[in-house]
Amino acid sequence: MSMTSTNADVVDIARRLIACPSVTPARGEVFAVLEAMLVPLGFTVDRFVVGEAPDGPVENLLAWRTTGAGPHFAFAGHLDVVPPGNGWTSDPFTPELRGDLLYGRGAVDMKGSIAAFVAALGGISEELPGTISLIITGDEEGPAVYGTLALMDRMAAHGLRPDLCLVGEPTSSQRLGDVIKIGRRGSVNMWIRVDGAQGHVAYPHLADNPIPRLVRILAAIDALVLDKGNDWFQPSNIEITDLDVGNPATNVIPAAANARISIRFNDLHSGAELIERISAIAAAEGGIVTAKISGEPFLTEPGALSDLVAGAIREVTGVEAELSTTGGTSDARFLSRLCAVVEFGLNNATMHKLDEAVAVQDLQDLTRIYELVVRRALGG
Amino acid sequence: MSMTSTNADVVDIARRLIACPSVTPARGEVFAVLEAMLVPLGFTVDRFVVGEAPDGPVENLLAWRTTGAGPHFAFAGHLDVVPPGNGWTSDPFTPELRGDLLYGRGAVDMKGSIAAFVAALGGISEELPGTISLIITGDEEGPAVYGTLALMDRMAAHGLRPDLCLVGEPTSSQRLGDVIKIGRRGSVNMWIRVDGAQGHVAYPHLADNPIPRLVRILAAIDALVLDKGNDWFQPSNIEITDLDVGNPATNVIPAAANARISIRFNDLHSGAELIERISAIAAAEGGIVTAKISGEPFLTEPGALSDLVAGAIREVTGVEAELSTTGGTSDARFLSRLCAVVEFGLNNATMHKLDEAVAVQDLQDLTRIYELVVRRALGG
Repeated sequence: MSMTSTNADVVDIARRLIACPSVTPARGEVFAVLEAMLVPLGFTVDRFVVGEAPDGPVENLLAWRTTGAGPHFAFAGHLDVVPPGNGWTSDPFTPELRGDLLYGRGAVDMKGSIAAFVAALGGISEELPGTISLIITGDEEGPAVYGTLALMDRMAAHGLRPDLCLVGEPTSSQRLGDVIKIGRRGSVNMWIRVDGAQGHVAYPHLADNPIPRLVRILAAIDALVLDKGNDWFQPSNIEITDLDVGNPATNVIPAAANARISIRFNDLHSGAELIERISAIAAAEGGIVTAKISGEPFLTEPGALSDLVAGAIREVTGVEAELSTTGGTSDARFLSRLCAVVEFGLNNATMHKLDEAVAVQDLQDLTRIYELVVRRALGG
Repeated sequence: MSMTSTNADVVDIARRLIACPSVTPARGEVFAVLEAMLVPLGFTVDRFVVGEAPDGPVENLLAWRTTGAGPHFAFAGHLDVVPPGNGWTSDPFTPELRGDLLYGRGAVDMKGSIAAFVAALGGISEELPGTISLIITGDEEGPAVYGTLALMDRMAAHGLRPDLCLVGEPTSSQRLGDVIKIGRRGSVNMWIRVDGAQGHVAYPHLADNPIPRLVRILAAIDALVLDKGNDWFQPSNIEITDLDVGNPATNVIPAAANARISIRFNDLHSGAELIERISAIAAAEGGIVTAKISGEPFLTEPGALSDLVAGAIREVTGVEAELSTTGGTSDARFLSRLCAVVEFGLNNATMHKLDEAVAVQDLQDLTRIYELVVRRALGG
């Protein structure tokens, strides 16, 4: 296998990042390694720790390089990784090249992408006008309360606001370049509780069975059609994920009944609106709802940014990228408040699994794609 | 307090029965004590042990006395008692007279009644034509599989079939004689299971959520009106008593969902018919039903037998008895297959409780009532 100097760099950078254990939340060494690579490229680096238990403290890194006036392009990502688990063939934090694959926790999610950010930036002239930034958190896999949101506050404090942003999450599915995420559905979980009055089944007039009321609530929820989807999103979907009464006695009417629902919703809704809607349905039968919004939906309408990324993919790999809004949530849901944002990165087949690995060829191709994206985003 | 010899007898007999610990299933001594009191009264006694674990073995006692041709009147009851529990003022199996009350486990449910059977029979001349029998089980408070049902088989083997039967369960509510049970509702529990296919909430098309199907089944069950009751029974009633999915993961569609229902039903239904009906509702949504019938309903239409008992009550106590079908199940549900059957006995206020106690006056009055009932049942 022949390697150009850039190609050699991305694998070397990925190895150096993987070698720093950084199970979420990431702290210290892995940030120091990244900082040491960015400073020689002319970047100003601001590392900071923020937040308190239980969702903090969290370390984050903001880096930027401005050359005169011009567009501001941002790479975003995270240095924390999920726990490796037991059963790896080689040590998860000792990067190992076997055949065409580089093994290690974070190889695809997403130290490999961050290595490609850095290697790509190594190929961008400091003379090119505009601003390039890196928005790197140590807490994307965890609660994410003090991660990208805190970085956005920090950017604002520095007077920085990107025009275009690429999140390097591993979006590729079958081969590198086949999927760009232009949006994500929102996610909210709700817990419904109906209280009644316990009693004996032989004397129901002395009790108040909460279960029929819960059943009516759930029947009304199940009958809801939130929407039919739109050009870029599938229909919003409600799943009832749990029922719980916990009554061991066959002759006892229980005192309370519980259910849990999960809604994945498109950009026709907000989490708050859905909570209000479900709460009203529950209230009609005396039910009480508690809720947790995991993420709001976002959409970057197909256009300049997705065209730019898709074009770079096509040029390097020959692959026609599909624009998708499927899957779970990501930090792009926060960044979309600032500017157009898409997600594009490595093949996600092994992410979060044992023996997570990235193809060396993919690292090299991703570096070339990112380099084209940055150059063109800055009008170069 | 003045006592006739009969009156003294009933308290003494009750004390002797209570003094034999006989937590369900009753065996041995308590039956020997009863047998020893019946033989001098001219009764043939057949004690037998039947059944295997887990619902046996069970001891039962059948006694009968026939004088020429005439009606056959049967007393029915049980010598087993529920466990005493901790916290009694005096030992539960050492009968103790304090004030006007006789304390001990079984004082009202139902060794007191059996004592009144025996004391009443002591007052009935052996010359009175007809047959008198006692159908006494050691397992009414337990599974009742080898109790009264086995006694009915035994009676058939001896060529005995009663025309009238009185079960001595403690039916009185506020004062002795206020309630005669002429029927009981049936009881059946059903377990409904709906199977689906587990999956991730973000990809519902790859899963099959069983909960909405269970909700539809339960909504249909809840909408059922089984009947409006009739002259002697309140409406049949369905209670959903449990829901169980057991899914801890908010992002997982579960593989199965379960519910349990309890139906208390009147004589317009049978357990089998209700199981068939609920099974059909469940099957429409792929649900599977398993069921356990605790008892079928029975009704002895108000008439000769209830008039006879109510008349004796009125004569002894001045109380007008209410004819009722409320409450749980009793062995009368079995005996009703043979002949007209009613239940009448002591005040149930302390049954199954700590410091179970019977008023001495009630024991004496009950003895007189039972004696009148037997004499008149035999046409004396």
